[in-house]
Parts: sequence; C-alpha cells; structure tokens
Amino acid sequence: MAAEPSSSSDTVVGARFLAEIREQPVALRALLAHDAEFARAAAAMQERDATLVRMVGHGSSDNAASYGVYAFGLLPRWTALRDSITLTVHFGSGPDLSGSTVVALSQSGQTPDVVEYVERARAAGAFTIAVTNDPGSELGALAETTLPLAAGPEQAIAATKTYVNQLAALGLLASHAAGQGALFADHLRATADLLESLIVELEPVIPVLALPFAFVGRMFVIGRGPEFATAREIALKLLETCRIAAEPLTATDLAHGPIAALDPQFPVWTIASDDETLPAVLEAAERARSAGATLLASGTAASRVEGAPYAVPVPSPPAPLCAPLLSVVPGQLFAWALARAKGLDPDRPNGLTKITLAR
Amino acid sequence: MAAEPSSSSDTVVGARFLAEIREQPVALRALLAHDAEFARAAAAMQERDATLVRMVGHGSSDNAASYGVYAFGLLPRWTALRDSITLTVHFGSGPDLSGSTVVALSQSGQTPDVVEYVERARAAGAFTIAVTNDPGSELGALAETTLPLAAGPEQAIAATKTYVNQLAALGLLASHAAGQGALFADHLRATADLLESLIVELEPVIPVLALPFAFVGRMFVIGRGPEFATAREIALKLLETCRIAAEPLTATDLAHGPIAALDPQFPVWTIASDDETLPAVLEAAERARSAGATLLASGTAASRVEGAPYAVPVPSPPAPLCAPLLSVVPGQLFAWALARAKGLDPDRPNGLTKITLAR
Repeated sequence: MAAEPSSSSDTVVGARFLAEIREQPVALRALLAHDAEFARAAAAMQERDATLVRMVGHGSSDNAASYGVYAFGLLPRWTALRDSITLTVHFGSGPDLSGSTVVALSQSGQTPDVVEYVERARAAGAFTIAVTNDPGSELGALAETTLPLAAGPEQAIAATKTYVNQLAALGLLASHAAGQGALFADHLRATADLLESLIVELEPVIPVLALPFAFVGRMFVIGRGPEFATAREIALKLLETCRIAAEPLTATDLAHGPIAALDPQFPVWTIASDDETLPAVLEAAERARSAGATLLASGTAASRVEGAPYAVPVPSPPAPLCAPLLSVVPGQLFAWALARAKGLDPDRPNGLTKITLAR
Repeated sequence: MAAEPSSSSDTVVGARFLAEIREQPVALRALLAHDAEFARAAAAMQERDATLVRMVGHGSSDNAASYGVYAFGLLPRWTALRDSITLTVHFGSGPDLSGSTVVALSQSGQTPDVVEYVERARAAGAFTIAVTNDPGSELGALAETTLPLAAGPEQAIAATKTYVNQLAALGLLASHAAGQGALFADHLRATADLLESLIVELEPVIPVLALPFAFVGRMFVIGRGPEFATAREIALKLLETCRIAAEPLTATDLAHGPIAALDPQFPVWTIASDDETLPAVLEAAERARSAGATLLASGTAASRVEGAPYAVPVPSPPAPLCAPLLSVVPGQLFAWALARAKGLDPDRPNGLTKITLAR
C-alpha cells in the first residue's frame, strides 16, 4: 500500500493523475466558454453538406470517437465513423472526401499519423476540424478549423480531463449540427456540477472497493451504445496504470465468444446506463454471472445489475448523452486507487510518454 | 496432453474444429463457383450508386468486416464501415440510407439484431446484401440480394472456414466493384492451393510450438491494415477455445497505452505481412520486445520480426489482399493445439452455442 491520497503535490504517488481527475469539472466549464466556436464549426459542416463525419485519433482520443458515433447518430442523425488512418497514410488510398468532415482528435496536436491524415484529407476535399488542447500545434495549423479542448495542461500520462472534454466537444458539435446546441450546452453545464459532487463523493469510497482486485490480471469491461466509449476508456486506464489485461466488449460481443474465457477470477465490469441499450446490457451481465464471473457494475443503472457484489452508481444527467461524462469517473478513480494498491505509480506507467510519436 | 491429432472422428478431442480447419481450401473453391453472383451484386451496387458500404455482424463476422474496410478501401476506393447495429436497432435512429449498401454477415442467417438491422436498413433505402451459409434463412429472405458463403455445414462452435470464406466474399465483391473481379478470383484460386499445402505443413508443427504457452492467461495480438482482421480473429479463437484473455490491437494502439501492461509472461503475437504497414508493425513489435514481452510472429514477413523466439511464416499469396486468408491459419491451429495442451476441448467452449441469439 502506498501513501494516503490526501495531497495533490508531486510527492504523493499518483498525485498528477488524481489532480487531473479532480480538475474535470473546471475543465468542462472552460470548454463551454468556447461554445460559439463549436456552433460556427457545425454551421460550416451544414453549409458544405459535409455530413459524413470521419473521426481519427489514437488511445483515449479513439475511445472518445466511439462516443462520437452515437452523438452524431442520435442528434443530427449523421453517420460518423472511426476512419482508417492506415488506408490514407500507409496505403495512400483514401477515397474522394468531398461531403466528409474530418474531426481529428489529439490532445497534443502532434500525433504524427493523425497530422498526416489531416493533411491528406484536406487535399482530398474534406472539411477538416482539429480538436486539440494546443491550437498552436502542427495539427491546429493544418486543419481548416481548430476547436480548443481547453482542458488546460495535462501532465499525467493517462488522459482524464482531456477525454471528458473530447466527449463534450463531440457532443457540442453534434448538437449544434442538430440545431440543439444551446440546450445541450445547458445540459453539459449541469453535468459539470454533477461531476464535481460525484468526484468528491467517490474519491474516499473507491480505494476500499478496489482493494480486492489487487491481484486481478484480466478483466472484461462491457458497455453498449454511447457507453461503449466508457468501456473502452476504463479498460485503457486499467491497462495503462494497473497492468490489467482489460478488454472492452460491447454487451453483445461478450456472447459471441469471449464469455467462454470467464471464471470467478475474471471480473466483468458492466457499464449500465438507463438508455435504450439497458436490457441488452443487463442480459449480458446475467450471462457473465451465469458463466461464473464476478460482476462490478457502474453507471446510472448500476443498481439494476443483479448479483453484482460491487456497484458504483452515478447520478442521472439531464440528458442520456451526458451520461458517459459521469460514467467514466468510477473507472478513473478505480484505476488510480488500484494502481496504488498494486504498488504501481499511476503517474509513471511502463514505457509510456505523454506525447506518443508512434505511427 | 490429449489424444494425437491424427483422426477427424468425433471421438478425438477437438476433432470438429480440426476437420473444419482442414476443409478450408475445399470451402474456398466452393465459394468461387458462385463468382458470377458476386459480380452481379457488385454491378447492382454500381448501378444504384450505393457506394457507402455498411457491414454488420458479430464475432468472427465482425472480424471479417474489419477486412472489408480494406478490401473496399483499396480496390474500388469506397468507404466501408462496421456500422453500429445499436443505433438502428435499439435507438431506432438510423440515418437515410440511400447511397448505402448493407452487407450483413451471418453464418446461420439467424443473428437476431443483424436480421432486424437489415429489415430496417432496407426500409430506409439501403441496398441490402446478405452473406450467409444458409440462403434460406430469415436473413436471406429479408435481404434484397443473398450471396452464399458456400462453406458447407459448420459444426464447430469456433468458426474457421466460414471466416475465411467471408474474407473471400468481401474481397470478391470489392474486386468486382473495382472491375478487377476476374483477376481477384484467379488469385483466390491460387490462394486455395497455398492454403491446402500450408495446413498440411503446419498441422504437425504447431502443437509443439504451442506447448510452452500452456499456462499463458493473457496475450495481445497485433496487426494493421487488412491484417487487423487476422489479429481480431486469432484473439477470438484464443478466447473461445483456450480461455486466454487475448486482446487484438492495431500496431499503433499498442504504443498508446496497452504497452504499459507488458512483461515476459505476457506474450505478444505479431501478424507481420509484407505490405505497406510492415514498418509500423515491425516498430510496434520492437517496442513490445523492449518492454519485455515474448514475441510470437506469423505472416508472410514473420522472419523479419527481430527477436521473436516463435515464428510461423506463411507463403506469399499472389496479391497482398489474399494474405489474411493464409495468416489466420497459424492462429486457428495454435488455438486448436493449445486448447488440447490445456486439457480443454476446443469443440466445447464454455457457455457458447453454434448459433448466438443474444441481442
């Protein structure tokens, strides 16, 4: 066991990671101050009829893009996809991109193949939007429009506030495209308040809940719809900071094979939110439990996951599409606490640097 | 250790799975007898200008769809995506689908949410194509065009010949759309011959190679471009039959977080094929090795993965897009052999049935 989590100074193990988890409500409000820029970008998408949305990013940014599929699908009812960077950058085989908007997600604005993708996509006729914490970066310079993430400097290697602001950015862009931007911005403002009280409430509770998982080596994290992004992001935090082989699965994926691997030493984290996918998620959790897995449930509908010895409910946001901004918090705090319980420093994951230059 | 792998009768552990691995060249040739039907379907896609390709499927079918992204992207240079079933089926929020072709992949033609997706997509204006082993199924009846997988009855729960024929089906459709169907069919015919000799060659070798992995509980499988489908499919075989928490990652994903989890007890299977992605794959393998992971390499360029104590090269096919039909074979045979080495029956994975009715 490491030191107590009371301070946010750099002398405490995992202090940066925790400090940035705590900063999320402030970061979200800072993003909302740029609402008008998101409205203008959405109007430009409409004017150019660039309504096929191609999102690119790696790691947490790609997880946020999974949310974007649902934000654009549910609000303006546009098709959004996590585009193949490889086709364009490695094979030089990108299609004609008139009619497409590219949304490039990169905290640093330096991810090499994302930068190269945007350069090529713009030449192929796409409307290009960079969403980055550093509008002055190479990515910001290359894209036609740059939207700030406004999360402030992120120093912890495992992203937290950047991820939540990426969700908010995609939700704002999609809601403005649907003519519902003002309403969605209000919902995000209320969500920032819920986020603030949720973090205060969970911070002392999660370390105790995480302790029994100290020797866990593998886990599935299941979610569906907008919460599949949450499943992916929580799994990534567990991989990065706790060295757990955590695999994200949609609720349905689980039944199509992976369930065969389960046993009581193989916990299944279930993200259960009160939306149209809940029955499928509850059914998948029940299948996992029948297969002998230990369940951990979180989300607005965590209490509806039967037989889960571990449950972390989160409050219901003003709109279902705001739920993933809250659902990720139990996973962030769990990763922080579990890393410490395992004797690892969540601020110093093996082999990672803040800006990833791999192609 | 279980019985020797010489017989394909049902009394041998894993006999069905092995029998169907062996049947793959015959199944592939049977598919090629339907080439004219694929040409007609591709012509209909052209005529209707339905060139945004939305693929849907679960499990191995969804893995094959990852290949489809590259087959359509590289041949006719069309955008193909693994579409969200949830948006359409659970949220009822599908977009206008004129201009889209839906390719629904289901071995049985009975997967409930795939069937429902196709029904709704057809009503929303999509050109719908079912690709199934059972053209008389509900899916076959609902789609406007049905293309046979022609793999013959598949009894093993873990798909093998269906998967390879799904790759071939997507490749045929994409190549006909690009006006290169006759050439690609010739390449597939040559690939069937290579597949036949590869299986004969690897079957006695792989069980010895798999033995040291008997106590492995987790693994990453990395690939990129068309071979990301192979990484996903091999990981799924290992999950289903060997109960290994095997997670597929693109070569670049690995560097964006998961690499932090690696140690020498955490092998990384690298699919290295001689295409434009090879430098990125080799760089990722080197990162994994530096992080202490044990490497297993397969693919046409397996010998170029430095420091891999385990390597399974496969022959170079007539075209790079045929490589994934060969690259998957080491993984199929490895899963079959490792399950037996672990005392598991690959024909009887826990909690799975041949036709998955989960939604």
